[in-house]
Amino acid sequence: MEPLPLSRAFTLIEPGPVVLVTTHDGTRPNVMTISWTMVRNFEAEFALTTGSWNHSWRALCDTRECVLAIPGADLIDTVVGVGTCSGADTDKFARFGLTPLPSRHVRAPLIAECLANIECRVEEIITRLDLVLLRGQAAHIDPARTDRRRLHAVGDGTFYADGEHFDRRAAMRAKLPEGI
Amino acid sequence: MEPLPLSRAFTLIEPGPVVLVTTHDGTRPNVMTISWTMVRNFEAEFALTTGSWNHSWRALCDTRECVLAIPGADLIDTVVGVGTCSGADTDKFARFGLTPLPSRHVRAPLIAECLANIECRVEEIITRLDLVLLRGQAAHIDPARTDRRRLHAVGDGTFYADGEHFDRRAAMRAKLPEGI
Repeated sequence: MEPLPLSRAFTLIEPGPVVLVTTHDGTRPNVMTISWTMVRNFEAEFALTTGSWNHSWRALCDTRECVLAIPGADLIDTVVGVGTCSGADTDKFARFGLTPLPSRHVRAPLIAECLANIECRVEEIITRLDLVLLRGQAAHIDPARTDRRRLHAVGDGTFYADGEHFDRRAAMRAKLPEGI
Repeated sequence: MEPLPLSRAFTLIEPGPVVLVTTHDGTRPNVMTISWTMVRNFEAEFALTTGSWNHSWRALCDTRECVLAIPGADLIDTVVGVGTCSGADTDKFARFGLTPLPSRHVRAPLIAECLANIECRVEEIITRLDLVLLRGQAAHIDPARTDRRRLHAVGDGTFYADGEHFDRRAAMRAKLPEGI
């Protein structure tokens, strides 16, 4: 994994990819699959919808840290597998052959097999809304990957990978942050 | 446009498509492009990040209604155009040749050219967080469209259309709401 400027981290989340969210409860790492995410601004702040129905919730609340790992299309069955079992009774890193890498700012691990990882601190949890607000601390990408297609969950058990690419940078220039 | 069961509306937003958000200020309709959206639950509740920097903000606050319209990949240049001018000085429906259709529950119009539309009421606005919480009232799709690819903004002026499709319904069954 190589560093990605934090100012570009929002470009990993804005397209709405499925993410693998890692946590570390002090004893071992865990990971969950989440599609309900949102960019909050251009400063690497994000929102997640989650709550106590997820085993990772306790670690998220207690440690106030996590990593948003962006899987590529090659990890489709890992994404589904991680999303359909629980860290309560499963070591998901072992079961799905995921390699935890040390983060720089948080104890939750990066995932070596993912396209990119964003280390995050929890800024605020609004339990009434099942809302977790995150602030990115550092971002990392694997520049060696040739297939960089992200996955998008439809929510009905089907997924799309990124397809045709449209470059409208010239037309969008006035609306983009400097340097993006 | 034909009705889509409201229980399936989240499947329009979960993949993270660019949306066109229509409002109606009492005088005329307006529309903005937004990518910062999130599903909040399986009951057609959604979140948007937006704020007073958008001309539509006033209508959203005053009327507490909007429509989330899902453009197909054919509308890429409309999405960019709508996102780079302002309703303050432009009739965007006229300029981009968009056809407003009457909604059933709200005054904000559906967009005939879009793949789907979700009529929404504003449940709550948290200005401190630039957060708007929406509740879907009805959903509509255009079943006649053959190209149903949605668009995903990267945030750097480029976009991806939905590409390869993966069916993992069997593996996901236990995690899906009844009937999805």
